[in-house]
Amino acid sequence: MATNADPIVDFDIQDLGLAESGKRRIEWAFQSMPVLQAIRKQFIKAQPLAGFRVAACLPVAPETANLMVTLRDGGAQVVLSASDSFMRQDDVVAALAKDYGIAVVSLADALATEPHWALDHGGLLLRDAPASLLGATMDRATSRELAFPVIAVDQAQTSHLFDHRYGAGQSVIDGILRATNLLLSGLTVVVAGYGWCGKGIATRVRGMGANVIVTEIDPMRALEALMDGHRVMSMPEAVALGHLVITATGNKNTIGRDHIDKMKSGAILVNSGHSPVEIDLGALDRVASSHRPIQDLVEEYVLRDGRRVYVLAQGQPINAAAAGGQPATVRDISLANHALALEYLSKNYTTMQHRAHAVPEEIDRQVARLKLEALGLKIDRLTPEQEAYLASWPEAN
Amino acid sequence: MATNADPIVDFDIQDLGLAESGKRRIEWAFQSMPVLQAIRKQFIKAQPLAGFRVAACLPVAPETANLMVTLRDGGAQVVLSASDSFMRQDDVVAALAKDYGIAVVSLADALATEPHWALDHGGLLLRDAPASLLGATMDRATSRELAFPVIAVDQAQTSHLFDHRYGAGQSVIDGILRATNLLLSGLTVVVAGYGWCGKGIATRVRGMGANVIVTEIDPMRALEALMDGHRVMSMPEAVALGHLVITATGNKNTIGRDHIDKMKSGAILVNSGHSPVEIDLGALDRVASSHRPIQDLVEEYVLRDGRRVYVLAQGQPINAAAAGGQPATVRDISLANHALALEYLSKNYTTMQHRAHAVPEEIDRQVARLKLEALGLKIDRLTPEQEAYLASWPEAN
Amino acid sequence: MATNADPIVDFDIQDLGLAESGKRRIEWAFQSMPVLQAIRKQFIKAQPLAGFRVAACLPVAPETANLMVTLRDGGAQVVLSASDSFMRQDDVVAALAKDYGIAVVSLADALATEPHWALDHGGLLLRDAPASLLGATMDRATSRELAFPVIAVDQAQTSHLFDHRYGAGQSVIDGILRATNLLLSGLTVVVAGYGWCGKGIATRVRGMGANVIVTEIDPMRALEALMDGHRVMSMPEAVALGHLVITATGNKNTIGRDHIDKMKSGAILVNSGHSPVEIDLGALDRVASSHRPIQDLVEEYVLRDGRRVYVLAQGQPINAAAAGGQPATVRDISLANHALALEYLSKNYTTMQHRAHAVPEEIDRQVARLKLEALGLKIDRLTPEQEAYLASWPEAN
Amino acid sequence: MATNADPIVDFDIQDLGLAESGKRRIEWAFQSMPVLQAIRKQFIKAQPLAGFRVAACLPVAPETANLMVTLRDGGAQVVLSASDSFMRQDDVVAALAKDYGIAVVSLADALATEPHWALDHGGLLLRDAPASLLGATMDRATSRELAFPVIAVDQAQTSHLFDHRYGAGQSVIDGILRATNLLLSGLTVVVAGYGWCGKGIATRVRGMGANVIVTEIDPMRALEALMDGHRVMSMPEAVALGHLVITATGNKNTIGRDHIDKMKSGAILVNSGHSPVEIDLGALDRVASSHRPIQDLVEEYVLRDGRRVYVLAQGQPINAAAAGGQPATVRDISLANHALALEYLSKNYTTMQHRAHAVPEEIDRQVARLKLEALGLKIDRLTPEQEAYLASWPEAN
Repeated sequence: MATNADPIVDFDIQDLGLAESGKRRIEWAFQSMPVLQAIRKQFIKAQPLAGFRVAACLPVAPETANLMVTLRDGGAQVVLSASDSFMRQDDVVAALAKDYGIAVVSLADALATEPHWALDHGGLLLRDAPASLLGATMDRATSRELAFPVIAVDQAQTSHLFDHRYGAGQSVIDGILRATNLLLSGLTVVVAGYGWCGKGIATRVRGMGANVIVTEIDPMRALEALMDGHRVMSMPEAVALGHLVITATGNKNTIGRDHIDKMKSGAILVNSGHSPVEIDLGALDRVASSHRPIQDLVEEYVLRDGRRVYVLAQGQPINAAAAGGQPATVRDISLANHALALEYLSKNYTTMQHRAHAVPEEIDRQVARLKLEALGLKIDRLTPEQEAYLASWPEAN
Repeated sequence: MATNADPIVDFDIQDLGLAESGKRRIEWAFQSMPVLQAIRKQFIKAQPLAGFRVAACLPVAPETANLMVTLRDGGAQVVLSASDSFMRQDDVVAALAKDYGIAVVSLADALATEPHWALDHGGLLLRDAPASLLGATMDRATSRELAFPVIAVDQAQTSHLFDHRYGAGQSVIDGILRATNLLLSGLTVVVAGYGWCGKGIATRVRGMGANVIVTEIDPMRALEALMDGHRVMSMPEAVALGHLVITATGNKNTIGRDHIDKMKSGAILVNSGHSPVEIDLGALDRVASSHRPIQDLVEEYVLRDGRRVYVLAQGQPINAAAAGGQPATVRDISLANHALALEYLSKNYTTMQHRAHAVPEEIDRQVARLKLEALGLKIDRLTPEQEAYLASWPEAN
Repeated sequence: MATNADPIVDFDIQDLGLAESGKRRIEWAFQSMPVLQAIRKQFIKAQPLAGFRVAACLPVAPETANLMVTLRDGGAQVVLSASDSFMRQDDVVAALAKDYGIAVVSLADALATEPHWALDHGGLLLRDAPASLLGATMDRATSRELAFPVIAVDQAQTSHLFDHRYGAGQSVIDGILRATNLLLSGLTVVVAGYGWCGKGIATRVRGMGANVIVTEIDPMRALEALMDGHRVMSMPEAVALGHLVITATGNKNTIGRDHIDKMKSGAILVNSGHSPVEIDLGALDRVASSHRPIQDLVEEYVLRDGRRVYVLAQGQPINAAAAGGQPATVRDISLANHALALEYLSKNYTTMQHRAHAVPEEIDRQVARLKLEALGLKIDRLTPEQEAYLASWPEAN
Repeated sequence: MATNADPIVDFDIQDLGLAESGKRRIEWAFQSMPVLQAIRKQFIKAQPLAGFRVAACLPVAPETANLMVTLRDGGAQVVLSASDSFMRQDDVVAALAKDYGIAVVSLADALATEPHWALDHGGLLLRDAPASLLGATMDRATSRELAFPVIAVDQAQTSHLFDHRYGAGQSVIDGILRATNLLLSGLTVVVAGYGWCGKGIATRVRGMGANVIVTEIDPMRALEALMDGHRVMSMPEAVALGHLVITATGNKNTIGRDHIDKMKSGAILVNSGHSPVEIDLGALDRVASSHRPIQDLVEEYVLRDGRRVYVLAQGQPINAAAAGGQPATVRDISLANHALALEYLSKNYTTMQHRAHAVPEEIDRQVARLKLEALGLKIDRLTPEQEAYLASWPEAN
């Protein structure tokens, strides 16, 4: 196993006393990361990253700490920088330094290590990609020109399931409860958008006892929502009924100027998309006669006719702003995709095109398989006879 | 509107007295076929099939009768032959002849009309495709060489939703209740396969109060089943627990020799796939010390150790053998796909490749849109500003 | 064990050839009656009915046959008469005679046996109660004056769960599917009444993918429906939206004259209560311009403004008219209550008041316990320490 | 309307600057308290408490502030003391003083006002009940001897629904997410107890995508859990499978010494009952080789064989310790019961027995009715004909 005991750059933290708290939280998170645990065991044996330097630009949190440990145990020399100054938990930094010998450094210092591979959450590393880079993994695909292959993990099927459907479904509930402590049972809740996230949210909101209305622009998704037992209507109709309106469209002004006049008094508006544009706050500002904060994460707008509407987290995505963040179980899946994508790159980079690639299906399936194994769950295998039978059909089911 | 008042071939039925019953049932079905209703209105105006002869080889039932009427009203000269002698309801034949002027004829007579277009449920028409044919719609894609373009409707997204997920989900419940009158609430039910059908079945079985175990060969689907709150295990483990075992895999011997020894006494085995191979009845026969029919659609096998297991519908797909058949609402969708595919072919056949094509996405979406409109449901449209915003993202959600 | 090999009255059936079919069906039903199986084992040992004559007036079906066998094996001399001439399955009569030595006789002949105990489904036996009677079990309490104690089983907690909530919930789905083959997914379904039956129906209808509206006269139940995630409104509002309207109120004209004008065209009306008065067919007749049968169990009414509404099973309770009847699992519970109530009477009748009694709670709990045991399920027992703890609280939870 | 502008006792707070925050929060809570809003309107008109002095001993929070305002507006002179020093929010105290003229005082000072009526959350006021008292409302019944009538609100049907089923169901989810940020989807969760709370928790946990196992000591409740689609087993079997074990039994040592040996490693133990005895922490302490805090509200116990188990909130009820507290919508119901019970007492105290009474059913129904009205929901009324029909049945449904 490669040693990182002698950190390759100086620590930029002063206080190592936080380390104990950080270590406890890293270990606790690792318990909810069975896939990464399994990959770590494989990596310790196979050393797929031996001889490589890896620079990661990620939120510095217990989950990503476990990824760094896994990569290090796979043979890499690793260094981590925070993808966002708000996303840098000091106790984790301290524990990484003291207990795992892994340095958290500035972006410039990370680049200065001349990494072979980058793990790039927000795209910062690739802005000034050093010449040493052979490839990278990213969360989202980029359209920028690339001098090396990149694998984007967010379109993996496992990511859709975990990050988008089940993860977002829960995080939105979590965020709304923390911000408002509203009893969901008995409410009418509008969910705008019935993609992966919208489906997850609608399922959970119903699971908490609310009655769901779905709005959509896509007739196929609208139909699916209907057949799933939800009501379907246009947003102008829906806002007249919704006690809570949750957007998950990825599009701007999903709740816009035209909807404000029709809103139910007392309505609470929540953005659960990935950017703060889904609720048109500008329009609300212009139309409202006044607004004021009620409590953390709740802003009240009083309209000229006396109706009051409430906006959570100033229109920022609620899952990031108010919830406990993605559960470790969810991060486990996306970070496992990063780890296996890095292993894949290190084996195949010489023959891969210099562009953004999707996660290879075999990795996606391996993540699913490892997850099931970690839970002690067995599935069936095709017998040779069954394989032959399936092969005899021109169109598999 | 083209007239078919003077039928182009002789009727092969004697008794027109049945017509009244047939007419009532055709009208009743049409009420549950809002998409075809909408298409018929369009066809009456646009006459997309004017000048064409159409031969259809389909089950002769109220729903397909409505399709024939729709095609005729779209300008075609139409003739219908039964895709299966069991699938020819006499009252519908009589009503088609007497009230709609549409003839139900033999396959040979259908071919003898020198049709331009074929609607071919089971592939019979295409076996001896007449030279007059310009193209066809089919239920399933074919791998045979073709002298014209064909559109296969079964992989349309609307078909997945209606035929496979929601249709099969309900039909399997319906079939099991009719065959056994079993109380589902409180039972442990194994669902083999978590594809479109398996998901639909698992959802409905849970909706009826049973506890679901899913078996799979695909780790991704297994994981999805788990995250949906079901239990996941291998078939040998599952059969030891299941009061009811339902297969929806499309593969042979999903319940096979190796599972029999582990089965719970009293277990009821149900095939809900699309061919009678999913349960290995031969193995059951060899292992059982005796078997006997209990009542219609229920066969009892007594094993040498005294355990009893039951097979429904002799291992035939339960939805076809015991349920009321696909609801008209479900047939509406697939027959609407046939109608619109025929319109599409008639406009584009000269430039289409001579092979099996999937249903064009625009048809799929149109079916969804018509269905929503028929239900009086409105969905949103993108504003120009929203379209611009989405276009600015390299990867749509 | 008492022998009934020499039937105490003459058979009133000619054909014993049906016996084989009857025997198979009796055995098959017995498999779904684990509670009665357990009681039979106890009765064989304890002979609680030794020396008594029992006359039962029940539907003659496989499930009741198993009750008769159980009572006989408990020491009684038994005779059965049909509670309704439509409820007398010939193959069961034949098998009871040939294979179990139990006679099915006329009511008069049943009374002529001078029974000590009566099992009286519909109250026929008690109309001319013979002087020999020491007591009886009934389905429903009676307000008539009684010369002996009676136990009514329909208010047992187990009956509420099985007959009313889970049984009715499924039977209504079953009946609607058999009568109409309607796809429930995506429909708006009105459930009138949120008592035991209404809750069961609403849960199952939602489980099949429909969107549920509940109507009520009781604000507490209405509130519970709302908190369970259903919509709540008045019937005049609801009928304007419902594709399907199901009554479960036990009250007359739940769908009445005032609602007809507001009904959605195409609406299907279903009574799932216990008498045919819940839908005011007279009003519908008077208001409609015409009506006609569409198919078995479906009647179409055309209103003067062209709207069409459909009534299933001529307004008779759908669970009886169109479904497969109560599942054996459900009958198991109510017949087990009859058997144990009879045992209780035979021990305690001398000290019981001459009126209708509810099922003693200990019987109710014993039925639940036997059911769990039959399924191989274990529950916990209080430790002495826990009993002491609970006893220290003035108000149990 | 009675004026309280001149507070009857001195304020015991110094800082009125907090008032603004308190007022905002009181108003925000009031929006989620439609029943109390409606009662306030009635009280303003009817002045049912005119001439009475009321002392309340309650948590000092926005919801109880609204109750005090309501009582004051009903004509009472009111004074509030905190039922618990931790339950006294300073901004609410300040706002009550400055904006509503209502004093929050010490218990002694509250008693010194010689109140006619007490609202007594925890029973403090009644310990030294002043001679002036005519009666009181309490949360729970007391077995102590009383010199006046008391109404206990916790057994109201509305309380069961709101506090126990829907309130607890959500609060437990809320508490677990805040303490652990665990992804519930895909987990196996044991719920001990299937009373009002247990049912609510099981429903919500399933609604979040987990698979539920129920343990019980009561066979009827166990059966109900089974028929609701949950698995049922004994606690020793269940702890071997549960990722999360939630107690809702009201009994001590629900998770006790005997269960520890069988627990799944990584199991998380949660008490959602009403006292900290449900998990036997003493036993865990004795058996564990070590334990340490992981983060707020999570304690890790390492067993001698290396298994780790986690206890949330040191075994305190999670809903109180970690969740956001009861939602205002839930408090609305129980505080409305207090308000109406007080009105009832003031009208009827002279004729009521001097003991603890349940909430009169008419109040319970009125609360439900007001809640529905506040939501704009209409329900049906019996016609005279329907009333007559129901009256003709000896046993209503």
